[in-house]
Amino acid sequence: MRAEIITIGDELCRGEIVNTNASWLAGALWDMQITVTHLHSCRDLAEDMAAIIRQAAGRSDLVLLSGGLGPTLDDLTVDLVSELACAEAVVDEESAERMRTRFAGAGVPLVANAERQVRVPKGARVYANSAGLAPGFEVQLGSAQLIAMPGPPRELKAIFNDHLRDRIGELRLARGEKIEYVARRILRVFGKGESHIATALEGLEIGQGESLHYQVKPPETLVKLVVRGASCELAAGQLKTMETGIRERLGSLVYGVDDDSLPAALLRDLQAAGHTISTAESCTGGLISGLLTDLPGVSRNFTGGAVTYSNAEKARQLGVSTATLEEHGAVSEPVVDEMARGVRERFGTDWGVAVSGVAGPGGGTEDKPVGTVWIAVAGPGDEVKTKRYCWPGARDQVRSLAAYWALNLVRRQLGKF
Amino acid sequence: MRAEIITIGDELCRGEIVNTNASWLAGALWDMQITVTHLHSCRDLAEDMAAIIRQAAGRSDLVLLSGGLGPTLDDLTVDLVSELACAEAVVDEESAERMRTRFAGAGVPLVANAERQVRVPKGARVYANSAGLAPGFEVQLGSAQLIAMPGPPRELKAIFNDHLRDRIGELRLARGEKIEYVARRILRVFGKGESHIATALEGLEIGQGESLHYQVKPPETLVKLVVRGASCELAAGQLKTMETGIRERLGSLVYGVDDDSLPAALLRDLQAAGHTISTAESCTGGLISGLLTDLPGVSRNFTGGAVTYSNAEKARQLGVSTATLEEHGAVSEPVVDEMARGVRERFGTDWGVAVSGVAGPGGGTEDKPVGTVWIAVAGPGDEVKTKRYCWPGARDQVRSLAAYWALNLVRRQLGKF
Repeated sequence: MRAEIITIGDELCRGEIVNTNASWLAGALWDMQITVTHLHSCRDLAEDMAAIIRQAAGRSDLVLLSGGLGPTLDDLTVDLVSELACAEAVVDEESAERMRTRFAGAGVPLVANAERQVRVPKGARVYANSAGLAPGFEVQLGSAQLIAMPGPPRELKAIFNDHLRDRIGELRLARGEKIEYVARRILRVFGKGESHIATALEGLEIGQGESLHYQVKPPETLVKLVVRGASCELAAGQLKTMETGIRERLGSLVYGVDDDSLPAALLRDLQAAGHTISTAESCTGGLISGLLTDLPGVSRNFTGGAVTYSNAEKARQLGVSTATLEEHGAVSEPVVDEMARGVRERFGTDWGVAVSGVAGPGGGTEDKPVGTVWIAVAGPGDEVKTKRYCWPGARDQVRSLAAYWALNLVRRQLGKF
Repeated sequence: MRAEIITIGDELCRGEIVNTNASWLAGALWDMQITVTHLHSCRDLAEDMAAIIRQAAGRSDLVLLSGGLGPTLDDLTVDLVSELACAEAVVDEESAERMRTRFAGAGVPLVANAERQVRVPKGARVYANSAGLAPGFEVQLGSAQLIAMPGPPRELKAIFNDHLRDRIGELRLARGEKIEYVARRILRVFGKGESHIATALEGLEIGQGESLHYQVKPPETLVKLVVRGASCELAAGQLKTMETGIRERLGSLVYGVDDDSLPAALLRDLQAAGHTISTAESCTGGLISGLLTDLPGVSRNFTGGAVTYSNAEKARQLGVSTATLEEHGAVSEPVVDEMARGVRERFGTDWGVAVSGVAGPGGGTEDKPVGTVWIAVAGPGDEVKTKRYCWPGARDQVRSLAAYWALNLVRRQLGKF
């Protein structure tokens, strides 16, 4: 099955927004092992839209289109696709009813042109929009299926996830493509790069219908497992076996699955252990506490942190000794050790994590070049684990890497309990 | 002048990267008032690339292409464009020399296929790449000019900024388009939305060759000024007059120009005043200190901050009284007032900024719904300015808005000195 993606809108052609819809759809199709051959964007201009749709439908099996489904007069998709499909544009009663209920519930009167956005080509297959008003729809154009979705990313994703994954499976089945029951899982790996993971998985048996690919998404790597089987149950079972085999080899490098994040994984571990943590940040300047407090419900396990950018603050807030600072400098093992102990003790938490480094662009020396970062984790039993890193890259990259590696070091220490 | 943009690469069609090159180029052309009619992407496949290039060159005046200029065999652009332009692919000696010098300097031997990436179609106009190895180049295809650039965003931007803005001006001049000396400026506005700005600028005289447009980039709005004149000097002079007129109406809402950022603007103001600042963060949890420490050279004006997520930490680190916390709750004017005073006093800084709010998704009440945020700024002379906000939106949006509005409140208070 060959697919093309068409995204419509003046704002795309003016560079006012980055086209995340196109890449999201392309990624979703690639995960289903469908090849996307072309991505197109054009303005809200019927002539250009029509030419692109005709060309795509003429050479591909599936055309996904987004944009131009709103209520205003510059939203042309419904009328244009209706014309190309030789169908009338009609109001979809179910979507109209949902819209009326929603407006009534909010106590807002319906504006005159509101019905424009719940129209579809007559006879089209309609896909309800659980995240907005305009429904998606599907028509046949020549030998291709064209599926239109609204442009707001939340709505597009809702329609794709709610309906299109299954529908595209059906279409492939109808074309005589085998397979069609797909089970998938993303294993999220932190701490080792793609080549290390590939080496660790060398010789792993990849069975019939199974596939495995990597996606580097700094600072982590995604290992994507896809299994196609004769039934949902078979595919799910096979996926489980495959996942077990991979986890055996990767161990604790795998911190989570699917949409998980490293801070969320650490919070889960803290919650499971009933432990609390505090942060002491120099070069990261609040990034670590910022990542932790991005998680709802973190307040039982995180009470606060110290941002100690100057040496004086390291001494005042954390009790780092002036002698240590003078002898070893702020970016050193003894200083992060004292920072981690200090924050843990003063904040009265089970864990304390500390970071001090040279984020650049200035401040580097021969001994401690830009990118040098010390991380320390103090834990129950007064044990302190320290690590030194040196990353190439710009200031923001060094800071972000330092924050994530610090969270990962806590996770690994916590894993030993 | 009509333009199209072609971006090439398997990784785009698999959705592994978001196409920021296309939107950046489209935005750069739009700023020059050139209409981009189509954006295309395809795989590294000669046949597909050729078809798209031919189609674009057949109907447009300018085709910008990026990708496929690397050293490996799946980089096809040079050979393909050479073929379409009926030219041989030859090594560009200047680029080859620069590459050899660079490798020799780094002590790295040149690999055999390195010369592939410094080739261009014979007779092409060559654009030196100040950020990498592969040069850009321009050929004529039919009545269109095709300009190819490497895919890495840094290199593409370098070539566009170093050469193409001027070159495209020349091309327009050659086509008999008038104008061609363009001066531009972006005024960055924080604190009021697009409609407020438009109202404030109502009736402003827009002269011959001048244009003004807005771009909403939450949490700020960009006001883009473009002036085209008969000479560089005239355009620049006219731009200055235009900018002055707009600044008179927008006043301190304009915090900076072009690529500036709100934290950087605040740091400049602190540096100019010779003042220091410290942060006391509850719901933002380190975002404000994170934004400040993202700036190189901040250490003279920022020494540290307190992340006080729990009430106990607000009391311990900042000296907020337990009575105030109990009487008014953590999200209240008296508490942020005490937080701001406390952090300023304990950190010994000229300014202290404090934030406490309900970021959600839980924790809202009738009095203090999700999105309620109190901000306080304590400054020289013990004066404290407090403000209450209530934003709709998800947890990350509320937190990010709170951080930026806090920085803005400091900037406004500092402006009174």
